[in-house]
Amino acid sequence: MSTTAGAIALVCRFDAQEWAEWLPALTAALPGETLVRAEDDHDPAAVEIAIVANPPAGALRRYPRLRLVQSLWAGVDKLLADPTIPTDLPIVRMVDPAMNAAMAETALWAVLTLHRGFHVYARQQRDSRWQPHAQRSADAVHVGVLGQGQMGGEVSRQLRTLGYRVTGWRRGEPLGPVLADSEILVNLLPLTPDTRGLLDTARLRQLPRGAALVNLARGAQVVDADLLAALDDGHLSHAVLDVFHQEPLPADHRYWSHPAVTVLPHVAAQTDARSAARVVAQNLAAWRRGEALAHQVDRRAGY
Amino acid sequence: MSTTAGAIALVCRFDAQEWAEWLPALTAALPGETLVRAEDDHDPAAVEIAIVANPPAGALRRYPRLRLVQSLWAGVDKLLADPTIPTDLPIVRMVDPAMNAAMAETALWAVLTLHRGFHVYARQQRDSRWQPHAQRSADAVHVGVLGQGQMGGEVSRQLRTLGYRVTGWRRGEPLGPVLADSEILVNLLPLTPDTRGLLDTARLRQLPRGAALVNLARGAQVVDADLLAALDDGHLSHAVLDVFHQEPLPADHRYWSHPAVTVLPHVAAQTDARSAARVVAQNLAAWRRGEALAHQVDRRAGY
Repeated sequence: MSTTAGAIALVCRFDAQEWAEWLPALTAALPGETLVRAEDDHDPAAVEIAIVANPPAGALRRYPRLRLVQSLWAGVDKLLADPTIPTDLPIVRMVDPAMNAAMAETALWAVLTLHRGFHVYARQQRDSRWQPHAQRSADAVHVGVLGQGQMGGEVSRQLRTLGYRVTGWRRGEPLGPVLADSEILVNLLPLTPDTRGLLDTARLRQLPRGAALVNLARGAQVVDADLLAALDDGHLSHAVLDVFHQEPLPADHRYWSHPAVTVLPHVAAQTDARSAARVVAQNLAAWRRGEALAHQVDRRAGY
Repeated sequence: MSTTAGAIALVCRFDAQEWAEWLPALTAALPGETLVRAEDDHDPAAVEIAIVANPPAGALRRYPRLRLVQSLWAGVDKLLADPTIPTDLPIVRMVDPAMNAAMAETALWAVLTLHRGFHVYARQQRDSRWQPHAQRSADAVHVGVLGQGQMGGEVSRQLRTLGYRVTGWRRGEPLGPVLADSEILVNLLPLTPDTRGLLDTARLRQLPRGAALVNLARGAQVVDADLLAALDDGHLSHAVLDVFHQEPLPADHRYWSHPAVTVLPHVAAQTDARSAARVVAQNLAAWRRGEALAHQVDRRAGY
């Protein structure tokens, strides 16, 4: 198969169902472009742009004339950990309003669950137990949001609209006071060398007794043994976890059966193919016009 | 105990814990008034106002000079069904912004749960099953809200803020088109002769196949056998129920163990004593100044 110069390679670890969703969406959004799947026959020297989703390490090495990498996912920690990708190759991460909205829905749901005790009522239902608990006003509930980027910012805004007392935390600020004040802590940080293992015993014990953790970012930011210990001895009351060190979460992991853990299968904010394809088209058009790239990854910051 | 003329009787079926919350709140909010609990010794002839919470039928008969009844609850169906209360005695129902906010939280939580499938993930967790499901955008989800009063209005507003396609329904409008369009139906209607038994087989089967019901109003508005049949044969996918014909829900009721039913112990919007006491104080002050009563019950409408 001949490939036009300036072609776009799709380097995506997708199954058949995902391709059926993404290929038409990208094709429709990029009508003037030559799109080719990495697994199909093509001329690597003609490829100028790679659109990637969870590519295997080293997968971009075959493209000698690559000038731009566009990620379909918001998290780019694996791309930055791939030593075969030149550090001066621009990488753009996905920032999609539809994904931010989905993330805000999940965060809102988790905070409402923990604040109003709907997880407690679910446990009581299994025992046919009718037991109302005291109801607190949202403006008495202190929520900490780690990360104040596109997602953390949107989550904080939505929580404030419902009346919660939200403290946002961003890199470089002192973390201790935020932890000490957070009855509910929502993690939306990018995974970087600084945030790997961030939520360990020392930090989790700074949360007030009975606090709850909502992790919607990356599993590697939590030290599992430390979290389990804090849940077991009651320092923390509950954890809602969407992300894990290993995904799918192994069937024998303690999180699955722990009464104080809600396990979600990495669904807090799935990328919507049509919406994300439109974002890609806008980014590429801006790049071709020579404009500055929005949401280009800053390798020093790590996201 | 002597009672000053113009006294206020508290006719409230409260346990010790509830009294410990309400008596200080009402006392603080009504500093110039003489408050007496119905179960304490007092002169019934001196009582001008009754503040009531779920009073036994006939409980107000003993007050010959009663001029006003203020309910601490939003629902007044039991008061209106008490034939011993003169029909020309003004009854004011509780309309408290804090209660509206609590109701909106519960409705939001239930709609987010059903839209994003968090109840499905909870079932999967019991089997250690990692299975993401497709995610839909809120603006593709049609939600019907029965009742557009203080609570239904606030719930609709909050759902629209999150992007849901909300159709509100109010008394007198055709109900069929709203049911046919609602993937999620939220009931917030007052219990009246017109709404008793409203959600029966005929109406539930007008909902699209796979729809879900959220009942936060009154149990008597749902025909339980009809709802269970619709859940059993899969016409409806799930029901979130906060209210029941008999409360507490009897331990052997099928709702407790039904996999497609979420049971809440009537906690969608508990009255906040301090906030409600302030509302009572405002209402009584307005009444003493001879002003029109806000939220006076309309006996013909039934709420």
